[in-house]
Amino acid sequence: MPVNLAPPETLLPIPGVRLGVAEAAIRGPGRKDLVLIELSEGTRVAGVFTRNAFSAAPVTLCRERIDGTVRGLLINAGNANAVTGDRGLDDARVTTAAAAYALGVAESSVLPFSTGVIGRPLPVDRMRAAIGVAAADLRPDGWQEAARAIMTTDTVPKGSSRRLRLSCGATVTVTGIAKGVGMICPNMATMLAFVATDARLTQDTLRGCLEKAVAVSFNSITVDGDTSTNDSCVLVSTARAGAEEIQLGQPDYPAVSEAIRDVCLDLAQAMIRDGEGATKFIRIEIGGARDVAEARQVAYSIAHSPLVKTALFAGDANWGRIIMAIGKAGVENLDPAKVDVALDDVLLIVRGKPHPSYLEELGSAVVRKSEFSIQVELRRGPAQVTVWTCDLGYDYVRINAEYRT
Amino acid sequence: MPVNLAPPETLLPIPGVRLGVAEAAIRGPGRKDLVLIELSEGTRVAGVFTRNAFSAAPVTLCRERIDGTVRGLLINAGNANAVTGDRGLDDARVTTAAAAYALGVAESSVLPFSTGVIGRPLPVDRMRAAIGVAAADLRPDGWQEAARAIMTTDTVPKGSSRRLRLSCGATVTVTGIAKGVGMICPNMATMLAFVATDARLTQDTLRGCLEKAVAVSFNSITVDGDTSTNDSCVLVSTARAGAEEIQLGQPDYPAVSEAIRDVCLDLAQAMIRDGEGATKFIRIEIGGARDVAEARQVAYSIAHSPLVKTALFAGDANWGRIIMAIGKAGVENLDPAKVDVALDDVLLIVRGKPHPSYLEELGSAVVRKSEFSIQVELRRGPAQVTVWTCDLGYDYVRINAEYRT
Repeated sequence: MPVNLAPPETLLPIPGVRLGVAEAAIRGPGRKDLVLIELSEGTRVAGVFTRNAFSAAPVTLCRERIDGTVRGLLINAGNANAVTGDRGLDDARVTTAAAAYALGVAESSVLPFSTGVIGRPLPVDRMRAAIGVAAADLRPDGWQEAARAIMTTDTVPKGSSRRLRLSCGATVTVTGIAKGVGMICPNMATMLAFVATDARLTQDTLRGCLEKAVAVSFNSITVDGDTSTNDSCVLVSTARAGAEEIQLGQPDYPAVSEAIRDVCLDLAQAMIRDGEGATKFIRIEIGGARDVAEARQVAYSIAHSPLVKTALFAGDANWGRIIMAIGKAGVENLDPAKVDVALDDVLLIVRGKPHPSYLEELGSAVVRKSEFSIQVELRRGPAQVTVWTCDLGYDYVRINAEYRT
Repeated sequence: MPVNLAPPETLLPIPGVRLGVAEAAIRGPGRKDLVLIELSEGTRVAGVFTRNAFSAAPVTLCRERIDGTVRGLLINAGNANAVTGDRGLDDARVTTAAAAYALGVAESSVLPFSTGVIGRPLPVDRMRAAIGVAAADLRPDGWQEAARAIMTTDTVPKGSSRRLRLSCGATVTVTGIAKGVGMICPNMATMLAFVATDARLTQDTLRGCLEKAVAVSFNSITVDGDTSTNDSCVLVSTARAGAEEIQLGQPDYPAVSEAIRDVCLDLAQAMIRDGEGATKFIRIEIGGARDVAEARQVAYSIAHSPLVKTALFAGDANWGRIIMAIGKAGVENLDPAKVDVALDDVLLIVRGKPHPSYLEELGSAVVRKSEFSIQVELRRGPAQVTVWTCDLGYDYVRINAEYRT
C-alpha cells in the first residue's frame, strides 16, 4: 500500500507534446505497456542517465542521440533490454526506427527507454505492431494513460503539473510522469521520468534546470540502495510559450526553474511513497556537516540501514540503530559528543547523550505515524541535505522474491 | 533456521583459561547471560574493536586497558551499554571491579564486553551478584556454556577448536567462541569473539596473527551491512605450551598462525550460517580486480544488495541483479565487456554477455541449494577476495522488527 499517494488528478497538456499508448503484451496480456511521445519541431531535450557500468542498450542509444534533434520518445515497460549484447542494441534501433516511421521523423530522432526484467530480448515484432496503434492514439491529453503504461511494480501512476505566468503575460506549463519503486538509489534508480514544458529555455538552461532539479529530487531518494541499468530522466522544452528565451539572469528564470524542480520533487517523492512494501514515508535531514558529500554520507547510511528500516517498519523508535548508522557512516573524526538526533520535534540525543526527559512513548508516537522526519545535527560545519526514504517490511521481500516467479 | 550449522561438538580447554557462567536476568529470567573468563598470569592479549564512531562504554574501557596486564574478561548479553554516557563508563568500571575482586586480580586487568540493546543502563546490582556465581563456576571446560551464554538473537552457539603439534613435540590448542548474527558487516559487526591459545606467541606475533585472521574472517562477512557499536574480538595467549617463543621466522609460526585463522574462519562462517533469517550460505568470489580494495567493493556491492539477496532467498537465479550490483559498485572505468559471472560451475555471463548455452534451469538448480558461490572475474588485475553472506528473507524483517517488542 502506497503511503498517502493518490493517482494525479489532472496532468496539464504541454503544447507541442502528444502521447499515445498501446499493448505490446510485454508484461502479459490486458495491459498497456508501450508509450509513444511525439515532440513538435524545435523541441530541445536534456537527459541524465544511470551511472551503472552495465548501461542498458536504450541508455547507450539515448546517449548517442540526445545531442541531436529529438522528435520522439519510445518507452516500454516489462523488459529492460539490458545485458542483451549487440542484439539488444539492434532491437533498440529497429523499434525506434519503427517509431520514427510512424511519426514521420528521422530515425535518429527517437529516443528509446525500457524498464523491466534484465537479460531478455525485446519482443520486437509485437512492439512494432503496438507502435502503430500508439501512433494512432496520439493526443495532447494522453499523460494519465502514459503514466499508467510505464508502471512495472508501481501500484500508483505518478505525475505532476505546475503552471505559471511569465512576466510577458504568457502561461508556461510543466508536466512530468515517472515510474520506479525499487532499485531506487542516489544517482538515479530503476526510474524513468519524463518532464516537459513549453517554456522557451535555451539548451544550456534546460540542462542546468534538469541537473539542479535531479540533484535535490531523484538523486535524493532511496528505497533499497540499488541502482538500475536503465535509469533515465529527460526534460523536454517545446519552446512554444512566450517569445523571449529564458536563461539565467532573465526575470522568469527563477520561477520556471522552480516549477521544474517542484515537478521533479513531486515525482521523486511519489516513488518513495510507492516504494516496494513501504508503509512509512521518511524525511532524513542532516545538518551541520562540513560539506554536502559528508551530509549525504550520513543521510544514506541511515536510509540504507536494514536495521533502521525494519525498526521503523515495526513502529519502534529504536534510536540505538540510528546512532549506529551515523557512527558507521565513515565521517572522519566525527565527535559523538556533538551529535543531536530528533524524530520530528522529539529530541532523542543531545550532544551524544540521551535527552534526560526523553521517554520511549514520545519516540514511538512519532514513528508510528505514516510520515515523519529523522533529524541529525553534526555541529561540524554549514552543510545540510534532505533525503527521502521508506521503511523495509515483509512486502519488500515478497515483491522482490516473487518478481520473476 | 541456521544453514547447515550445529552446535560445536567439542571445544578443547586451553591451559590457563577457566570460564564460568551465571544468570544476571539481563535478557529475561531462566537464561545464563553473564560470562567470566579467568586468564592465568603471563597471559598476553590482543584485540580489535568496532570502527563505529559511537563506541560503547565497554569498548572505550577495553581500548584503555588492553595494553596493560589482562587477567580476566567479563561478558554480558542482553544490554550493549552503548550510548549510555558517563554512567555507562562508570557501570563498566564498577562491574569489572567486581569481577577483578572475585578473581583476586587488579581492577584494571579485567576487560568488559557487552552486547544487546543500545541506550539502557546496565543492571549493575544483578550483575554484581551474578559475577560471584560465575566465579564459583569457573572451570577449564566451560567453553560450551560460555558460547551459549553470550548469544543474543543467535540460534546456535558458535565455537571452534584446533590442535597441533609443535616441532618440539609439545601440543598447542586454539579454541574460540563467538556471537553475532545481525548488524554484521565488514570492519567488525555486532559480534564478540574470544579466541585463546596456549601457544607461546610474542606480543607482536599475537597482534599480527589476530589482524591477519580477522581480515579474512570477521572482516569478510556481512549479513546486513550494519556495524555495531560494540564489536570486539580478542586473541589471548596463555603461553603455557612449549618452551620457545613463536614469532615470524620460527618454524612453528605458519601452523600456529593458520590454526588461529581457521578458528576465526569457522566462527565467522558460523555467524553467517546463523545470520538473521538466513536460508542460504553464499560465498562471493571476486577475481581479476586491480587491488583488494576494488575486489571488496564489488563483493560487498553484491553482498549488500537487497535485490540480490531477496532473489536468492526466492531461489531465483536473477543474474540481472548481480550484474546491476557489479555495475553500481563504483569501480572506475569498469569494462562490462570483460566481466564473467558464474554460479558455482554454471557460467552465466562471459565477457559481458549471456553465455549462449546458459539455461534458466541451470542457474536455478544452483541457487535453490543451501550453499553455493557467486564468482565474478573482472579481468583488470591480479587481486581476488572471498566474502561470505546470506540471503534476505521474511525472517530477517520479523526478527528485527520484533527485536524490542
